[in-house]
Amino acid sequence: MSLLAVGSVAFDDLETPFGKRERVLGGSASYFSLSASRFHPVQVVAVVGEDFGPDQYRVFEGRPIDLSGLVRKPGQSFHWKGSYGFDLNEARTLETHLNVFQDFHPELPEAFRSSPYLFLGNIDPVLQLDVVKQMTQRPRWVALDTMNFWINGAREALQAVLGEVDILLVNEGEVRALTQEHNLLKAYRKVQAIGPKILVVKRGEYGVSLFTPEGIFAAPAFPLEDVFDPTGAGDTFAGGFLGFLSAAGKTDVDTLKAATITGAVMASFTVEKFGTQNLEMVTEHDIKERTKAFSNMIRVDGL
Amino acid sequence: MSLLAVGSVAFDDLETPFGKRERVLGGSASYFSLSASRFHPVQVVAVVGEDFGPDQYRVFEGRPIDLSGLVRKPGQSFHWKGSYGFDLNEARTLETHLNVFQDFHPELPEAFRSSPYLFLGNIDPVLQLDVVKQMTQRPRWVALDTMNFWINGAREALQAVLGEVDILLVNEGEVRALTQEHNLLKAYRKVQAIGPKILVVKRGEYGVSLFTPEGIFAAPAFPLEDVFDPTGAGDTFAGGFLGFLSAAGKTDVDTLKAATITGAVMASFTVEKFGTQNLEMVTEHDIKERTKAFSNMIRVDGL
Repeated sequence: MSLLAVGSVAFDDLETPFGKRERVLGGSASYFSLSASRFHPVQVVAVVGEDFGPDQYRVFEGRPIDLSGLVRKPGQSFHWKGSYGFDLNEARTLETHLNVFQDFHPELPEAFRSSPYLFLGNIDPVLQLDVVKQMTQRPRWVALDTMNFWINGAREALQAVLGEVDILLVNEGEVRALTQEHNLLKAYRKVQAIGPKILVVKRGEYGVSLFTPEGIFAAPAFPLEDVFDPTGAGDTFAGGFLGFLSAAGKTDVDTLKAATITGAVMASFTVEKFGTQNLEMVTEHDIKERTKAFSNMIRVDGL
Repeated sequence: MSLLAVGSVAFDDLETPFGKRERVLGGSASYFSLSASRFHPVQVVAVVGEDFGPDQYRVFEGRPIDLSGLVRKPGQSFHWKGSYGFDLNEARTLETHLNVFQDFHPELPEAFRSSPYLFLGNIDPVLQLDVVKQMTQRPRWVALDTMNFWINGAREALQAVLGEVDILLVNEGEVRALTQEHNLLKAYRKVQAIGPKILVVKRGEYGVSLFTPEGIFAAPAFPLEDVFDPTGAGDTFAGGFLGFLSAAGKTDVDTLKAATITGAVMASFTVEKFGTQNLEMVTEHDIKERTKAFSNMIRVDGL
């Protein structure tokens, strides 16, 4: 009954106005699985190089994260170098070394092929569709993340895989590029026509908008005095959101709203420190307390 | 027990991707009073020219809006011409004719000087302070709107009037410019040090963030499929927000949250048609229904 996640595991060099770090653990599958595994067992399919060693494996140890689909190949791991300006809204990519990720062809271990929940992290949509085809039974839901590189450069392949997808998680610019529609309600109708019935629009410091057949919802980002590093916020959100949904085993609008808050809470921890550092350290008690604070903040009693 | 509003009454020429209109009723005090008067009696102090005639007066008739402070002077009314691009986020000013507004020196009618609630619309902070000084007793609260023109060009005068203000309503760029601080929680601390204990940050299509000594809140904008004209959205929000607060007679955090939703609901009506058109027509039933829909949308039950 696990949540299967396919994506990247990487080393990141990060520069923000508040400091810099080199070769910290990164990649969508890292943030996603560390976040989702707080709520539900996760299976990871990704590729790393020979530079991925005991220090990195240790981060995932003692958590319900199955790494039997994490393949180690000769060569170096995916390595990304990025920087942020003072407003932390957009990453500037300084260097991208795909390394072993260049030839990533996800192959699902036998035991992963019947997982009921599937998250397709941001990789080539041709590979995303191939993963779906490897499943021996249709998962209860398939969720997908993508980016403008694929929306603009591989539109047909992306449309093909989106026909198999139930939940689309993208940022605001991406959903507008995908649908050629500025208004988000209208964009949602077009997304539904392509396939996904549930749309999650990530809006950075403005929070998240959720579109479902039963209604819509918007959550602010949890307000923080110190945001150090936004890297991984989106994948951490996806992990909390889909981990919560997997644990709940349902996708009605009340559950989806609660999952949205949960994802936002998890993302708020990630951005308070560099890389996965805070996500590794945060306790169950911290998560519960912040979830309660978040619920209280957005509750309106005076009407 | 009225809510006293000082601001502008104008004619606007509006161009959006969806059409254009000439000489529609505009100005901060128009949107504000039409919105606030749905909840509480309003007194208006503003200036118009000889071109302001029966058609314009009629818009305010039959509503609890006291126009005895609306002075009609020889000359033409304030006239603004602006246009919006496809994303409707920022107005481009094409022409500004201050006309009689150039020499506006608000003079409060005797009956207005003891009003318990005071809204200082976006005018020269020297005039805003002068209005405060004309009050025979300290209002229960004073609310203020301003803009970058005054923040950058009249900082000392603005700081002086802000010392008398309880509730500051500004947009995101304005609060950052005022406090020289990007992070909104830190910006709020600086605002508190200047004077206002309550900060409302208007974020356009991203909604509103509310900062109070008892806690913070964020409301999304009500999601609409058709946004025709964002002109007046901020002043309409302020009207709904402060009208609700005046009617409630208190400013605890629960009341402030409910006021925020109310302001957002009113603004959502304004942007659906040109100028004040929808704000004039909307019924009490429409307002109640949308408020209910908004409350349901943001309520989270699944946690």
